Amino acid sequence: MTEPIIFYDIPSKDSPSKAWSPNTWKTRFCLNVKGLPYKTVWVEYPDIAALIQKIGALPTDVNDDGTPYYSLPAIYDPNTRTALADSAAIVRYLDRTYPATHRLVPAHTDALHAAFGRGYSSLLTLSAIIVPQTVHLLPPRSAAYFRTTREAYYGKTLEEVSPPGSARRAELWAGVDKAFATYATWLAAGGVEQRFFLGEDIGYADVTIASILMWMRVVFGEESKEWKDVTTWDGGRWARHAEVFGKFEAVDVGEAAEI
Amino acid sequence: MTEPIIFYDIPSKDSPSKAWSPNTWKTRFCLNVKGLPYKTVWVEYPDIAALIQKIGALPTDVNDDGTPYYSLPAIYDPNTRTALADSAAIVRYLDRTYPATHRLVPAHTDALHAAFGRGYSSLLTLSAIIVPQTVHLLPPRSAAYFRTTREAYYGKTLEEVSPPGSARRAELWAGVDKAFATYATWLAAGGVEQRFFLGEDIGYADVTIASILMWMRVVFGEESKEWKDVTTWDGGRWARHAEVFGKFEAVDVGEAAEI
Repeated sequence: MTEPIIFYDIPSKDSPSKAWSPNTWKTRFCLNVKGLPYKTVWVEYPDIAALIQKIGALPTDVNDDGTPYYSLPAIYDPNTRTALADSAAIVRYLDRTYPATHRLVPAHTDALHAAFGRGYSSLLTLSAIIVPQTVHLLPPRSAAYFRTTREAYYGKTLEEVSPPGSARRAELWAGVDKAFATYATWLAAGGVEQRFFLGEDIGYADVTIASILMWMRVVFGEESKEWKDVTTWDGGRWARHAEVFGKFEAVDVGEAAEI
Repeated sequence: MTEPIIFYDIPSKDSPSKAWSPNTWKTRFCLNVKGLPYKTVWVEYPDIAALIQKIGALPTDVNDDGTPYYSLPAIYDPNTRTALADSAAIVRYLDRTYPATHRLVPAHTDALHAAFGRGYSSLLTLSAIIVPQTVHLLPPRSAAYFRTTREAYYGKTLEEVSPPGSARRAELWAGVDKAFATYATWLAAGGVEQRFFLGEDIGYADVTIASILMWMRVVFGEESKEWKDVTTWDGGRWARHAEVFGKFEAVDVGEAAEI
């Protein structure tokens, strides 16, 4: 490997000190855990589709109206001339292409990791709490795009989705607590409490959880009631999980995308 | 190992030729794949709680009113004097206690297997279709118990839940199709289509899917429109999956429980 990988991330108002997106954090953690050289290019929300098309990656999903859905993270690896979107595809590409680095989806865990992705997200009632606050972290163009698309999705203003102090918000937050409690039971399913999903080695499932924790820490803030709750759940295991990933949370200055 | 394990299963009107419960099938497949000697004891629904308490296994969940919830499968292993309920706990006990048999939850896959259990079930919209038909397979005492408890859960008669020909039923069945299509994508997540969740070796995730397929085959019948649909989904891969497990579907005559 001679040239750094280009890693496309979504900026916050305070980039690079605050990278916030749980989806792009999955890839950033993967790159950092593997110790692969990379350079961040910050792409504002309204530019994501054009950027993905420009680098030649594929859409990651299909919109309800049948049009392609483009999303970050994406990478361009100049060493292999590969453009790729979707964090789950990217981690497998990195495992395969750089076999001397820490493998995050070990042999025979591909399908179970894919099932994990559905399992953890099906329980997590976080979005309706955190999305309305995430908008305040974004630079103006991205904030406007984010607000328009998310308000169309929810069918109400972001401020109406789960207002602080509302019963709805309390119910959703109890759901997040319960989801993490369930993750803790998964980690003890073998009869002993495992440190990571694969035992003693960090894997992609752990990266996924760490990315959700990072989203909460950045959006709610370390002094928030929410983050304090998180750090007490399940005997402090999520605080320890975040701490382990503290070694892998470096964010480079990077540069703004040219579209 | 000198004495057969006692395996507690729920009878159908036609036991032993038709064992039907997807939960107990998980354990029966495990026992059959491992080739462990066992003997079935058939327990009617109204007797399950008393049976579990009699053998000294723990409840598997808590009812909404706070009372313990007892369920099958359960086993009693006279060789170790161990009574155990819950298929996920049983497979791990069998793996641990009989290490010379085929391991179904390999090392470092406990937590991912637990996440799989949530992931696959969160997608599956089968219950509201198949539960109303399952009642017709049960012997009278079990059928009455099953009807009362399930009608309380759905808040309507079983006949009203998803009547044949209804839009609701078509929508649910499309959901089952889509769920299996997603399982197929999980099995291809590594870039190649895997035969089983762990690659070439049968694991507990495959047993779980096989048990759902068995439930459909037994309740709908092999000549049904539903089973014919299933066998065509995803290029016939679920028909092949069921065929592989055909080697492991022996059901012994067993005996009725004495409560």
